[in-house]
Amino acid sequence: MTNYVITLHVMVHTSKPLTLEDFLKLPETKPASEYIDGKIIQKPMPLGKHSAIQGECVTAINAVVKAPRIARAFLELRCIFGGRSVVPDIAVFTWERIPCDANGEIANIFLDAPDWTIKILSPEQSQTKVIKNILHCLKHSTQIGWLIDLEEQTAFVYIGETVQLFDEPQQHLPVPAFANQFTLTVADLFGWLLK
Amino acid sequence: MTNYVITLHVMVHTSKPLTLEDFLKLPETKPASEYIDGKIIQKPMPLGKHSAIQGECVTAINAVVKAPRIARAFLELRCIFGGRSVVPDIAVFTWERIPCDANGEIANIFLDAPDWTIKILSPEQSQTKVIKNILHCLKHSTQIGWLIDLEEQTAFVYIGETVQLFDEPQQHLPVPAFANQFTLTVADLFGWLLK
Repeated sequence: MTNYVITLHVMVHTSKPLTLEDFLKLPETKPASEYIDGKIIQKPMPLGKHSAIQGECVTAINAVVKAPRIARAFLELRCIFGGRSVVPDIAVFTWERIPCDANGEIANIFLDAPDWTIKILSPEQSQTKVIKNILHCLKHSTQIGWLIDLEEQTAFVYIGETVQLFDEPQQHLPVPAFANQFTLTVADLFGWLLK
Repeated sequence: MTNYVITLHVMVHTSKPLTLEDFLKLPETKPASEYIDGKIIQKPMPLGKHSAIQGECVTAINAVVKAPRIARAFLELRCIFGGRSVVPDIAVFTWERIPCDANGEIANIFLDAPDWTIKILSPEQSQTKVIKNILHCLKHSTQIGWLIDLEEQTAFVYIGETVQLFDEPQQHLPVPAFANQFTLTVADLFGWLLK
């Protein structure tokens, strides 16, 4: 039996611009939709390699930062700030910036940029859109953005207005200061693709 | 009658790594092939929009910098430096850096990085490969790199390790100091797509 995975990109154009408030009233979709510059853009359906990296990466980061209550990494978390609603593949928030309900539980609505945003490129996805999303985060409170290209086995690390390239196996990927106990080489990152 | 334009990407894997010297002995291809990290990568066949922007852009730059003998913009010029052989869509060299034959004609072989490199993304082309190419130029003597995404009507401008985003019609694109008489807005750039 053959399994097919279909990647779906949906962009809805409305006759009058949709406001962020209108967008937030719409039901959630799967994969999540983002609201960027008045447009709704649905994220691609994650494929196997994307899913593997996303899962391993969130686990590895939380293994270091969660128990000491430094920070927490979230999968597919909607973040609303700066007139957009974006859903990084992994969003890491430092402990004191994680919003809570009155009963101490993690809130459902995050009205801020993550401290660290991670995007894993999907085939056919517009890399420009993804880079613009990362730069939007960095204009707000995000300290560092990772863009991972599985096809090219390359990671770009964005800090402020700078971008650095990582494609040598022994290179260590820069992390935010609060996560300096977390170390990851390019070889470690793409090694997660192996069975 | 229907005309089909076929975009061709060819990547040749050889059993032992090809050297730059070996690559330079091979016949030229059309579209040009680049030599990057031991691999031969053929550029995509330029489509209509790419061709329009490339032609207008080289004309507009030369209109300002060529007559006063400040610099010259070249289309599809092979540049060999830093162990790679790359072919920017537009390569701009300042006047004194343009190599000449003994008889004063422009040389056939350019063994240096351009002062200004311009890449126009083609559909299906790996944006990561294109960005890596620009960063390679900037590690050598290139002052500024433009990456133009026609689909997203967005330009990225790379200077040193920084990247800036230009997608608002009235924004002026940064140019190298030697070309400060040349001004171009985002609206001007993508206006060249109109008939």
